[in-house]
Amino acid sequence: LCYSPPMTIKMSQDQSYWSSINADIEAHLKQAIPIRPPLSVFEPMHHLTFSAPRNTAPALCIAACELVGGHRDEAMAAASALHLMHAATFAHENLPLTDRPSFRPTINHSFKPNIELLVPDGMVPFGFELLAKSDDPANNNSDRVLKVIVEIARAMGSNGVVEGLYKETLVGQSDGEELSDVSIGGWMRHTCKKKEGELNACGAILGGASEVEIVKLRKYGLYVGMRQGYLNRNASNEKELQKVVAELRNLALIELQHFKGHKVEAISSFINGVL
Amino acid sequence: LCYSPPMTIKMSQDQSYWSSINADIEAHLKQAIPIRPPLSVFEPMHHLTFSAPRNTAPALCIAACELVGGHRDEAMAAASALHLMHAATFAHENLPLTDRPSFRPTINHSFKPNIELLVPDGMVPFGFELLAKSDDPANNNSDRVLKVIVEIARAMGSNGVVEGLYKETLVGQSDGEELSDVSIGGWMRHTCKKKEGELNACGAILGGASEVEIVKLRKYGLYVGMRQGYLNRNASNEKELQKVVAELRNLALIELQHFKGHKVEAISSFINGVL
Repeated sequence: LCYSPPMTIKMSQDQSYWSSINADIEAHLKQAIPIRPPLSVFEPMHHLTFSAPRNTAPALCIAACELVGGHRDEAMAAASALHLMHAATFAHENLPLTDRPSFRPTINHSFKPNIELLVPDGMVPFGFELLAKSDDPANNNSDRVLKVIVEIARAMGSNGVVEGLYKETLVGQSDGEELSDVSIGGWMRHTCKKKEGELNACGAILGGASEVEIVKLRKYGLYVGMRQGYLNRNASNEKELQKVVAELRNLALIELQHFKGHKVEAISSFINGVL
Repeated sequence: LCYSPPMTIKMSQDQSYWSSINADIEAHLKQAIPIRPPLSVFEPMHHLTFSAPRNTAPALCIAACELVGGHRDEAMAAASALHLMHAATFAHENLPLTDRPSFRPTINHSFKPNIELLVPDGMVPFGFELLAKSDDPANNNSDRVLKVIVEIARAMGSNGVVEGLYKETLVGQSDGEELSDVSIGGWMRHTCKKKEGELNACGAILGGASEVEIVKLRKYGLYVGMRQGYLNRNASNEKELQKVVAELRNLALIELQHFKGHKVEAISSFINGVL
């Protein structure tokens, strides 16, 4: 990307940070979802969880927790829940329905529609279960866990991902292959920031951030998520796109100015084009 | 029902107890789900929530809370969440999918499949949100709320409703119109007890029940739920059905022997054929 600063030296170091986060989340999920009876449920759940393309929210959630001085373990259940819910949404987004326009690229379906409808219905509550069970009364962190449940429920729910998906469907129906700028704006606002970014407030909350830090990390995630969303879309106007992406990057970095320490570099690498 | 004891005198009194519970849950949900923008989300959410047939879990949840000395308000968010999730499950159960056998009676669809897929996807997290938000730090009840979130997540998830629905689908596919006794047993174990009964442990937890009381009310709910499940099914052997239903009623009433006070009559009316 033309707006990335020269960071080749730091790149491998930052990449290993994200790789270690992602490996830890995967290990946590593998333990949480073993292939066990009933196989009719756990085999597809395992498959849908690990075959879904990764999004940035889980890793950002961990990075935000570590940035504010929390331990990785404190955000691990939340990060795993975020991936589970993302994978469930991905399956439902790609479910073949009779009234659904085919503006998305078709994905490989390993299971019948009935399974790909029902199993994600179980994955979302399972994510909330992981999160609620991570509460450790000895740690006195119940309030933080409950706050995060509200955050995630809002982001996944009617004002978040679900509304975004619905808008995306409308866009797909009205414009065919092309997305108008107005519609894409609405979709971005409602979906990307939720799905891919704003949720790193969760990591901040679990890591014990102050209110000010939570606000700043929520905004950081919002800009990261929107930038990601724009980059993942085909744009009719490449120059305009690069301008918006650069703007979002600057807005994101401003939010990080408040923080000190070596973890700032790690989390800012998200927006510096390393990933 | 031939197994109901003569309770005509008490009936109207008990009915008004259940009516007042159901009216309170409905009022709570109406406030939680106003018809507001985005209408594309809240109109169908409102409709799907209030058009779904009631099941017994929400009312039992409140009754269990009151039985152990809790206040109705303490279980109201949980009861509302239970209805929301039941309504979401009902919509997905009746979603027209290409590979779905048509062994269920067809319901009226007010919205297109895409909407009836996505809006319930938002209703489930919204239920968890209502519940998590009901936490009042001043009340010091965070641990109870988190316990209930785990209960509900388990009941809705892969070991509960979702597995039950899958089994039901298999039953529908293999036997056509008729359900074999073995299959119905599996379906009962996995679905009814979860959907319609076992969840009244939630009300007990929120009302401050002891561990012993929670175990007893969970079992009570389980038997109520299974009984309800059998009664809602067409049976090939009517006599056998009545025997099973009577047995479940006795098992349920045994669990209530531990409790004292006038609320015992109220909650036991559930199994005494009043409803």
